[in-house]
Amino acid sequence: MAAAIEPIPSGRLFGLGVGPGDPELITVKALRRLRESQVIAYYAGPHKHGNALTSVESWLRDDQERLPLIYPVTGRPPPPPFDYEGTMRAFYDASAERVAEHLRAGRDVAALCEGDPLFYGSFMYLHDRLAEHFDTEVVPGVCSVVASASVLQTPLVYRDQTFFVLAGTLPEADLERLLAETQAAAIMKLGSNFEKVRRVILRLGLGGRARYVERATMANEQIRPLAEVDPAQVPYFSMILVPGERWQGE
Amino acid sequence: MAAAIEPIPSGRLFGLGVGPGDPELITVKALRRLRESQVIAYYAGPHKHGNALTSVESWLRDDQERLPLIYPVTGRPPPPPFDYEGTMRAFYDASAERVAEHLRAGRDVAALCEGDPLFYGSFMYLHDRLAEHFDTEVVPGVCSVVASASVLQTPLVYRDQTFFVLAGTLPEADLERLLAETQAAAIMKLGSNFEKVRRVILRLGLGGRARYVERATMANEQIRPLAEVDPAQVPYFSMILVPGERWQGE
Repeated sequence: MAAAIEPIPSGRLFGLGVGPGDPELITVKALRRLRESQVIAYYAGPHKHGNALTSVESWLRDDQERLPLIYPVTGRPPPPPFDYEGTMRAFYDASAERVAEHLRAGRDVAALCEGDPLFYGSFMYLHDRLAEHFDTEVVPGVCSVVASASVLQTPLVYRDQTFFVLAGTLPEADLERLLAETQAAAIMKLGSNFEKVRRVILRLGLGGRARYVERATMANEQIRPLAEVDPAQVPYFSMILVPGERWQGE
Repeated sequence: MAAAIEPIPSGRLFGLGVGPGDPELITVKALRRLRESQVIAYYAGPHKHGNALTSVESWLRDDQERLPLIYPVTGRPPPPPFDYEGTMRAFYDASAERVAEHLRAGRDVAALCEGDPLFYGSFMYLHDRLAEHFDTEVVPGVCSVVASASVLQTPLVYRDQTFFVLAGTLPEADLERLLAETQAAAIMKLGSNFEKVRRVILRLGLGGRARYVERATMANEQIRPLAEVDPAQVPYFSMILVPGERWQGE
């Protein structure tokens, strides 16, 4: 009689926030899970190394398998008839399937995420497709908003102030209406939207309070006055903070 | 001839985000700075241990001096003629002076902050008083918003969705107007404001999407459906998240 074949238990999926860029801004927990994983999955642009991989590379061992998930499109999507939404959906489906193959084979997979996994990150698309089917743990990370505040040495919000996180991709009128309504804000996803965002900030009289930083905590971090930023050179990993007015108990 | 007396160089002030509660959710960098510091300063309520101290206690050495900064008032402030603002200002002034004494004596001070130091945290009041005068480094931390999302396993915001962080202390009409305007939100500082916030959420038809968690990642973490929360038992360290609608490339 043949011995019963034990089914292989599935591996675990770890969604790891690796923080904003500085390798030391990973948490102790994410580092432990990273080292426990046989497979390291990460998104990257075509011909790019990937910021998430860069920030953890010094912690990895040679025997850990790398699974790059390469975006089919980055930056401004091509105009119709190119089906951007469909292309991205197919990419996220295929990425989830590649991760699932490892999980079904019993290997633990660390999915790396810049900043935090559930805050504007691509990990969400793996999470939405896999978390119901596999043992999944999300380890939160230091997000770019608070990392930017720390390098700018700028308290963000005092007491009961409102704080809005807005994408620079929003229409100009929406940005203006929302920024006029809050006491503090972070504007992300600048890139080619920088000029529009700066215009709105100046129109609202927030130019004195607003601060700009790119690649906060990364090796090539840059802090510049808003007026000195060249709109043609603004990377995706950049942010404008509008801190709340200082409160000192007066 | 007497030997010249070298002035003692001032110590460094580290504002350390220790994360949301789980001791492993401190960053590698904050842990390194914590261990380098001779003095550990932390805020705590009267007769309380302090959540920030609790979450790092396992990492401390016996020879590190503890400097508790005890709030004169916590919870709902007494009514006038009690001068709440003046009392708090005097407390923050005195706290900064106690930290400054150590810095002037050449000792490095780690100021502990739950979550992140510059995001709704009391460290800001030390920072505003001391950063200009002493070598200061802020190490960002995992804030409670993303920690809550991770324990709720809830992606917070997709693509260009807006995300508002609001204090439960806001007037009901303001909460309603702002929540109606955003695609995703976190409502902090619940405590005695819970019932008001829940009322607004139900009125806006957000009850199905809203999620409640208290003491996320701490040993006594609790996740409950909104309908089952007892408003009399809601702690300060609790949060309601209203995640953005899921996007899957459709």
